[in-house]
Amino acid sequence: MDVRPERIIHTFRRILSKDRALSGWTCVTVGAMGAMAETTPDESSSMTDTNIHEDGSPERLQIDTIRTLSMDAVQAANSGHPGTPMALAPVAWTIWTKHLRYDPAKPDWPNRDRFVLSVGHASMLLYSVLHLAGVVEVDADGKETGKPAISIDDIKAFRQLDSKTPGHPEYRMTTGVETTTGPLGQGCGNSVGMAIAERSLAARFGQDLFDYDIYVLCGDGDMMEGISAEAASLAGHLKLSNLCWLYDSNHISIEGSTDLAFDEDVGKRFEAYGWQVIHVDDANDTDAIDAAIVKFKACNDKPTFIVVHSVIGYGSPRAGSEKAHGEPLGEENIRLTKQAYGWPEDQSFLVPDGVMAGFHDAVSARGKPLREAWEAKFADLRAKDASLAEAFDGMRQGKLPAGWEADLPSFDADPKGLATRDSSGKVINAIAAKLPMLIGGAADLSPSTKTDVKGDKAGSFEADNYAGRNMHFGVREHAMGSVANGMALSYLRSYTATFLVFLDYMRPPVRLAAIMELPVVFVFTHDSIGVGEDGPTHQPIEHLATLRAVPGLDTIRPGDANEVVEAWRVALTHTHEPTALILSRQAMPTLDRTKYSSAKGLEQGAYILSDCDGEPDVILIGTGSELSLVVAAGEKLAEEGTKVRIVSMPSWYLFEKQDRAYRDSVFPRAVRARVAVEQAGELGWDRYVGLDGATVMMSTFGASAPIAKLQEKFGFTVDNVCAVAKRVMENSK
Amino acid sequence: MDVRPERIIHTFRRILSKDRALSGWTCVTVGAMGAMAETTPDESSSMTDTNIHEDGSPERLQIDTIRTLSMDAVQAANSGHPGTPMALAPVAWTIWTKHLRYDPAKPDWPNRDRFVLSVGHASMLLYSVLHLAGVVEVDADGKETGKPAISIDDIKAFRQLDSKTPGHPEYRMTTGVETTTGPLGQGCGNSVGMAIAERSLAARFGQDLFDYDIYVLCGDGDMMEGISAEAASLAGHLKLSNLCWLYDSNHISIEGSTDLAFDEDVGKRFEAYGWQVIHVDDANDTDAIDAAIVKFKACNDKPTFIVVHSVIGYGSPRAGSEKAHGEPLGEENIRLTKQAYGWPEDQSFLVPDGVMAGFHDAVSARGKPLREAWEAKFADLRAKDASLAEAFDGMRQGKLPAGWEADLPSFDADPKGLATRDSSGKVINAIAAKLPMLIGGAADLSPSTKTDVKGDKAGSFEADNYAGRNMHFGVREHAMGSVANGMALSYLRSYTATFLVFLDYMRPPVRLAAIMELPVVFVFTHDSIGVGEDGPTHQPIEHLATLRAVPGLDTIRPGDANEVVEAWRVALTHTHEPTALILSRQAMPTLDRTKYSSAKGLEQGAYILSDCDGEPDVILIGTGSELSLVVAAGEKLAEEGTKVRIVSMPSWYLFEKQDRAYRDSVFPRAVRARVAVEQAGELGWDRYVGLDGATVMMSTFGASAPIAKLQEKFGFTVDNVCAVAKRVMENSK
Repeated sequence: MDVRPERIIHTFRRILSKDRALSGWTCVTVGAMGAMAETTPDESSSMTDTNIHEDGSPERLQIDTIRTLSMDAVQAANSGHPGTPMALAPVAWTIWTKHLRYDPAKPDWPNRDRFVLSVGHASMLLYSVLHLAGVVEVDADGKETGKPAISIDDIKAFRQLDSKTPGHPEYRMTTGVETTTGPLGQGCGNSVGMAIAERSLAARFGQDLFDYDIYVLCGDGDMMEGISAEAASLAGHLKLSNLCWLYDSNHISIEGSTDLAFDEDVGKRFEAYGWQVIHVDDANDTDAIDAAIVKFKACNDKPTFIVVHSVIGYGSPRAGSEKAHGEPLGEENIRLTKQAYGWPEDQSFLVPDGVMAGFHDAVSARGKPLREAWEAKFADLRAKDASLAEAFDGMRQGKLPAGWEADLPSFDADPKGLATRDSSGKVINAIAAKLPMLIGGAADLSPSTKTDVKGDKAGSFEADNYAGRNMHFGVREHAMGSVANGMALSYLRSYTATFLVFLDYMRPPVRLAAIMELPVVFVFTHDSIGVGEDGPTHQPIEHLATLRAVPGLDTIRPGDANEVVEAWRVALTHTHEPTALILSRQAMPTLDRTKYSSAKGLEQGAYILSDCDGEPDVILIGTGSELSLVVAAGEKLAEEGTKVRIVSMPSWYLFEKQDRAYRDSVFPRAVRARVAVEQAGELGWDRYVGLDGATVMMSTFGASAPIAKLQEKFGFTVDNVCAVAKRVMENSK
Repeated sequence: MDVRPERIIHTFRRILSKDRALSGWTCVTVGAMGAMAETTPDESSSMTDTNIHEDGSPERLQIDTIRTLSMDAVQAANSGHPGTPMALAPVAWTIWTKHLRYDPAKPDWPNRDRFVLSVGHASMLLYSVLHLAGVVEVDADGKETGKPAISIDDIKAFRQLDSKTPGHPEYRMTTGVETTTGPLGQGCGNSVGMAIAERSLAARFGQDLFDYDIYVLCGDGDMMEGISAEAASLAGHLKLSNLCWLYDSNHISIEGSTDLAFDEDVGKRFEAYGWQVIHVDDANDTDAIDAAIVKFKACNDKPTFIVVHSVIGYGSPRAGSEKAHGEPLGEENIRLTKQAYGWPEDQSFLVPDGVMAGFHDAVSARGKPLREAWEAKFADLRAKDASLAEAFDGMRQGKLPAGWEADLPSFDADPKGLATRDSSGKVINAIAAKLPMLIGGAADLSPSTKTDVKGDKAGSFEADNYAGRNMHFGVREHAMGSVANGMALSYLRSYTATFLVFLDYMRPPVRLAAIMELPVVFVFTHDSIGVGEDGPTHQPIEHLATLRAVPGLDTIRPGDANEVVEAWRVALTHTHEPTALILSRQAMPTLDRTKYSSAKGLEQGAYILSDCDGEPDVILIGTGSELSLVVAAGEKLAEEGTKVRIVSMPSWYLFEKQDRAYRDSVFPRAVRARVAVEQAGELGWDRYVGLDGATVMMSTFGASAPIAKLQEKFGFTVDNVCAVAKRVMENSK
C-alpha cells in the first residue's frame, strides 16, 4: 500500500473539501464547541477553514499520526482512552514542535521545559509524541541505552505486562515521562512543585542556567478536583510565570455532558487566583494555540491558564460523546475516522514517511543548541565555582554532600525531655546549612510542626524571594503533598508538615511518592491522643496503620530526641523511599543512652533497647511517646523480678527489611508473651505480638480532654501496661 | 458586684466615647480591615461610629457576652481558640436573633434553619449561642431531658473529659450541634448536603413543609481547602438558593498574615461558581450583615456567599494577630479586653441580667410560631396522607419502612457469574422503589460503579429536578463524601460511589461519618488489581487495610452476588455505622448455595462456607473476588485428601462483634495452618492467620496488564494457593 505523505494529503484534501458532509462522522467538520445539531453547514465550513491548514501540511500529517497511533494502540489493547489524545493532538503538537525547549537526544537535560500530562489516561498522546520526537532512552544513571524511549513495538504493547507503555504514564518506567499521572489533579499539583523548583534553582544557580517552563495538559476532571484548586491558588500567589496549564474543555465527562455537574466559569476562577487567562476557541487552531503560548512566554508576573475548547474523539463518529472517552472506538469507527482524516483505512500503527523526521527535527532544532549552550554555561560554572557545580551534580544524582551529617546533634539524657516535633526542629536547623536543597514547609502549621528553617538566610519562599526555603503552603495539605512530589522530581529534597490527622487530606500524593519512589519527607506531628483538648477530630487513631499499609513508604515514629536524629538521618539517606516522620506534640524523656542501647538501632527498624539475662518472660514493645511508658513499666516489672526485654520499634518498614535471623533475635519465636503499646489503633500489630500477645492501644476514637486524663481513660499508664503484661505472661505459661 | 446591664452599658459608653485612644487595645476602635498603624484617628472614629450602636444596646451586651464567655472558657481550659468567636459574635448574633428560624424549645424541629460552624475551632461561639438562646437538651430519641443543651457549668467545663463542650463541636454529643466540625472545609461540604436534602425533602413532602435555609460560618482555612472549592462548585451548579456561607475574612492564618500564602480574590471565585456574592466591610456592622442576609433570602436561583471582613480577637491587645487564634489570651489581656468592652474586669463567665432572656426571646419569638405552624401542617399531612407522614416519621427515627426487604433479589448459581458492582446495581434497583430516601450517586463514574437508579421516576437530581435521586457529584470525591454526610444528617440514607483507589481523595468524610455514627454507604468498586490495564495508580493495594483501620466503620467485601444482597441488607440496617461496600470490576462466579452455606452468614462477618469432617488440616480464607479462587483451591486440595475448611470473611468489623465462642468456632485456636487470600496488601491479616499461617496477597503496587496476566504474576492462581497451603500445613506439623 502506498503510504507516502502525498497520497495521504491527497486523500485528506479530498475528504475535507468534498466529502465532509458524508454522514457518520460529520462532526469532524464542526467547530470545537458545536454539537452537530447546532451547527449550520456554513458555520461548520468556516470553522473548518480556520481549523485545517489548506496545504495538507506536514503539521496535519504529524497530528493525525498521533491521533491514529492512539486509536490503534487502544484498539489493540482493547482498553484505554482514545478520545483525549485525538482531541489534544494539535495542542501537544504545537507545544512540542513550536515551543518546548527539549533535546530528544538528552531527555534528562536539567533545564529542559517540562511537559506534564495531567490527563494521564490520555497516555497514548504522550507515548505517541515521545515516539515521533525520537526521544532516546536513558537509564537511571542517565546513560543512553541505545534504544528509543518509545518504539513502535512499545506502542503496540500498550497496556501489556512489563511494557514501557502502561495504561497511565509511570515515572521511572518510561524515559520522557516527567511524573506519574492518572489520579486526577496530581499532575497539576506536581507542576506547581516543578515551577517552584525552577525558581529555587534559578535563585541558587543562576537564571542563565535555569529558566525552564512547565506545560501541563489538564482536563475537566482535573478542574473539578479540589487539589488543582489548591495548587492553582498557590501558584497564583507565588506568581509562577514559568507555569502554563492548557485546559482541555470538552464539555464531556464520564457520566455525560459536564452540564450534569460542572458549569462554573473556570477561566474567571483562574483570574480570581491571579492567573493570566487566555481562550482558544478550537483545539485544532494551532495558530491560536501558538499565539496563546507566545502570550504565556511574554508574561512574567503570573502563571498562564489557556482554556482550549476541544471535541473529544475528534473526527470519529463518537466525537463529542462520552463514549469516546474510556473505551476503544471499535474497528468500524476507526475505519470511518481514518477515512475522515484521509488516512489509509486498513493500516494500523502507521507512521508515514517523513513524519518522525519532521517532528523530531522541529523539536531538536530548537532544543539541541539550547542544551549545548547550557552545557557550556554549566562548564563555565564549574570552572568558576567548582563546588557549586558539584553541588548540582550531587542533586542530579540524588546524593547528599559529603559531610552533611557532621552537624547532626546528640541529645543528653533528660527525664523531662522534649517533644519529638521540637527535637525534629532542632535537627532540621542543625543540618539546614549543609543541605541547601532541603526545602519544605507546612500547611499553615509551622509554629506547631516546628519545621521552619530559622535565620535570616533561610527566609520564606515567596514571589519576591525565590531564594527562600520555607514554603508557606497555606491550608492546602493535598496540594502541599503534590507540590512536594513535583519539587522532588526537580532535584530538591522536599519535605512537608502538618498534623498527623490531616494525612487524610493528602493521601494521594503520599501514595504517588511511594509509587514514584521519591524520597520526600512527610512530617506529621501531633501524632496521637496526646493532642488532648482538640478532641476526636484532631486525634489520629488509624493513621499510623494507614501509613504502614502503603508499600515502599518508610513510616518512622521515633521514641526520643536521639531517635529523631536517626530518623532524619535515615529519611535523608533514602533515595527511593518517601518517609513519613511521625512526631509528638507532647514532651517525652530523652533516654539515657549510656544505660540503654544506642539510638542507631533505629536503622534496623526495631532494636533491643534493654534486656534481661537469659530468655525474657515478656517482651514489651513501644514506639514514639509510648517508648518511655514501656521503659517505666519494664523497670517496674523488673523490680518485681520479671525478666523483661524492651524493644523500641520506630519503623516496621526498616525492620521487615532485616534478615530472618535479626528479626528472630529481637522477637524470638519461643517468647510469645509480648505486649505492644502505642497510642493508636492496633491494626497490624498482631504480626509482632502474635495470637498469644496483647496490645495497649486505641480501639475507638479519642476524646477532648487534657492529655493526662486521656492517658488514664485509655489505659496508657504504667500500672495498666504492667497488668496487661502480667496477664499475657499468665496466659502463655 | 453590680452587673446590671445599665452599669455595663455605662462603662462601655465611657470606654468607647472617651478612652478609646488609650493604648494597648486601640485596635478595638479600628475598622475590620485596618492595621493600627494604617488608621488615622478620624478614620478609626468614623468606622467606630458605624460599628457600634450608640445606645449601648442589648444587642451589644449580648454580643459581648458571647465574646467574654468564649474568652473566659478558653482561659479556664488553658486551651482553645478565642479570636474567632470574638470576631464573629456579631455575625452569629445577627443570624440567630434576626433570621434563624429555630425554636430553642424544639431544637430537633425538622424544618429549622441549620446553623453550621465550619470553623469548628471556634466552638465556644456555638456553645455561647446555644447557652444564650436557651436551647433545651433532647436525647437521642428526641425526648427533652429537662436540662439546657449548654449550661453555664458546661461552658466552665469547656474541653474537659466527658463534658458537653469538647474542643470542637461533636454531633450527638451536644444538642444543637448540627454536624461535627473541626477538620477544615468539612462543615462547608456538609452544608451542601443539607441544602440538597432540603430540596429533596421539599420535592417529596412539599415546599410548605420544607423550606429551611442553611447558614454556614467559614474562614480562610475553609477557603484554602480544596473540598470547599469542590462543594461550592457543586452548590452553584445545583442553584442551591437555600444555602448561605458567611466567610470570615480576617487576613490571618496560623503562620501569620494570609499574605504569606493566600491572596486570591475569593469573592470573584465564588461568582465564577455561580453564587451571589455580597461584601460586608465590617463584622461589627450588624445592619450590613442583616442587609446581606435579607439579600440572601430574596435570591432564589443561586447560593449566597457573604464576605465578612473581621478582626480576629476583636477588642483585645492581640486583635488582628495570629496570636489571637489558637491559645488563651492570658489573664492580663482578658482584663484589658473586658475593659475595652466596658465589661467588669474581674468577672468571669458573666451573663448580665436580661441577656439570656433577650437573646432567647428574639430567637423564640420567630421560631416558636413557625414551628407550631409547621406541626399543624404536618398534622394536616397526616390526616390527608398518613403513609406519607409515617414515611417521614420513619426517616426521623432512622427506621426503614416495613417490608423494605421484600424485593431483595436472590441470585442463582452461575459459574460465570457477574461482577459484584453489577449485582450491587441490581440490588439498588430492586430496593429503590421501597426506599425513596435512598439517594446517592457517583463522582462521575456511575456507568462504571453501576449505582444509578434506573427508570423514569428516578432521574437526576438537578436544579430543574430536585425530585431526582441520582446525584451527579462530578469528579469531586472529597465533596461527595462530605455532602453525603450532610444528607445523612438530614433524614436521607445517602450513598456515594467511586473506584476504591479514589478513597484516598475522600478519607476525611469517611472518618467523620464514623465519628458521627452516620449510616452512609460508601460504595467503592474496582477493588483490586482486577482493575487490570489502568495500572498501579488505579489499583488499590493498601485501601482495604486503611478502611478496616477506621473505628466504627463496617467494611464489607462480598464474595458473590448473594453476599452482595446481604451486604446491602446489613448496610441499610445499620443505624450508627457507615459502611464501605467493596465491589469488583470483574465477574466472579455466583456460588451454588445449595452446596455451600447461605450467604446470610455474612451477618456474622465471617462464616464457614464449606467444611470437612473433623478438625481441618487447613483453613482457607477468602474475600470478594478471591472467594471463588479459594473455593477452587480448596476443592483441589480436598480431592487430594486434605481436610479443608473454607471461610468466607466479608467483614472483619461484623466478625469482631461476635462472641469469642463463635469466633473460635470459625477459627479454632488449635488449627494454626491458615491461609488467607485477598488481592490487597496483607496488613492486619496476621490477626487471623497468626504467626504460623500465611497469606497470598500483594506486597507491592500492581502493574498495567490484562487481569489474567496480573493474577499469574502476583500468584492469584489455584496452583499457588494450593502450594502455599501445603507449605503452611507442612510447617505447622
